[in-house]
Amino acid sequence: MALGAFIVIEGLEGAGKSSVMGALKSRLEEHAIRVVTTREPGGTPMAEAIRDCVKQAWPDETVTQQTELLLMYAARSQLVENVIKPALDDGAWVLGDRHDLSSVAYQGGGRGVSLATLSTLRQMTLGTFAPDFTLYLDIAPELGLSRARGRGELDRIEQAGLAFFERARETYLQQIEALPNAVTVDASQAIEKVQADALIALQQFIDNRA
Amino acid sequence: MALGAFIVIEGLEGAGKSSVMGALKSRLEEHAIRVVTTREPGGTPMAEAIRDCVKQAWPDETVTQQTELLLMYAARSQLVENVIKPALDDGAWVLGDRHDLSSVAYQGGGRGVSLATLSTLRQMTLGTFAPDFTLYLDIAPELGLSRARGRGELDRIEQAGLAFFERARETYLQQIEALPNAVTVDASQAIEKVQADALIALQQFIDNRA
Ligand SMILES: Nc1ncnc2c1ncn2[C@@H]1O[C@H](COP(=O)(O)OP(=O)(O)O)[C@@H](O)[C@H]1O
Ligand SMILES: Nc1ncnc2c1ncn2[C@@H]1O[C@H](COP(=O)(O)OP(=O)(O)O)[C@@H](O)[C@H]1O
Ligand SMILES: [Mg+2]
Ligand SMILES: [Mg+2]
Repeated sequence: MALGAFIVIEGLEGAGKSSVMGALKSRLEEHAIRVVTTREPGGTPMAEAIRDCVKQAWPDETVTQQTELLLMYAARSQLVENVIKPALDDGAWVLGDRHDLSSVAYQGGGRGVSLATLSTLRQMTLGTFAPDFTLYLDIAPELGLSRARGRGELDRIEQAGLAFFERARETYLQQIEALPNAVTVDASQAIEKVQADALIALQQFIDNRA
Repeated sequence: MALGAFIVIEGLEGAGKSSVMGALKSRLEEHAIRVVTTREPGGTPMAEAIRDCVKQAWPDETVTQQTELLLMYAARSQLVENVIKPALDDGAWVLGDRHDLSSVAYQGGGRGVSLATLSTLRQMTLGTFAPDFTLYLDIAPELGLSRARGRGELDRIEQAGLAFFERARETYLQQIEALPNAVTVDASQAIEKVQADALIALQQFIDNRA
């Protein structure tokens, strides 16, 4: 078994994932835990190049559902094998800004790829590797997207439209319900309250593990 | 059914695929057939970007078997949906420099990905889409690679080593034997003889189809 723990923060655009990461990282470091942070898709030079491919607009062609899906898993394979697993084996904890559940929500719920296909691809790419704990920041798409818009231009996937994100949110909620080590935080609250709730959930995970 | 036909040229590096393409294209055009040529991985702006990802060296990370495999199919999905199918539907014939069989030979035979995994991924990405005719240029890896080296620097995949290409060749030969519409040409012959054999095989396919 790996020494470290893999904690993933999930949620729609603008839910506050990046804003919460810092608070979780500081809390872990107070416990003298070494922390490695990641983001998906991306996190290695090759995975970042794949991220650019999948996120940028391709005005002269249709990006197929399958291409988007395969690129997400290609980037994930690079990150897991080159960064996440070595860090965990080395005793660090890994804090991930998105992981596999994002593909289930976005490519599955959003684009309509079947859960069976997603599960086959996950098994093929990751085997049984999975997060030890998942923190899901739940937010209505309108609110999340309005926050994300304040951050700058929306990329190809962020431009998918409200119905896409409604389906992604539904899928997130269904999946989280079925996961053993997952907690939902109401991300429509003030940022201080979101962070406080996230820290309580993290502390519970740490206590249970000890 | 599509109006056009999809003809694929397969073989190891330096077998003469690119050299034979021109001869086949001219012959088809003599028959007043409109021809679209493709290469894999690549052939659309996004697929060419994916090609760069998968072919270039990534000195600071390990490119996993899975990543290489998924990127090949991602590029293939873009090419098939945006270029090959529309061309066939429009009555053109498509001449492909590599297609799915290259993944079976290289990622399957070469890297060791199982045929079951390849078949699942093919079904997921392409459904039942497949070439109407396959021309396999058979060559010993030593000879092919020495020709390819004459062409310039070898890329990440071309540098895989002789044993890799021996396994890829074995897989090509097994697969071609099982395919209904496939012909093998001895690519160790002089280029003129290779082209002549290829043209005979093409003419037979055209006659059978008529
Ligand atoms: N609870 C919150 N209330 C108001 N604004 C927030 C809240 N959480 C995050 N933000 C702001 O919304 C934007 C998106 O937050 P961010 O953490 O980048 O979200 P994500 O990483 O989930 O897309 C940022 O500008 C951030 O400061
Ligand atoms: N039958 C042949 N005999 C000798 N040289 C050849 C032959 N076929 C191709 N070549 C040369 O070998 C090199 C690789 O051929 P190419 O058509 O690019 O192969 P491929 O596209 O299969 O990698 C080129 O320089 C080409 O001119
Ligand atoms: Mg973020
Ligand atoms: Mg060539």
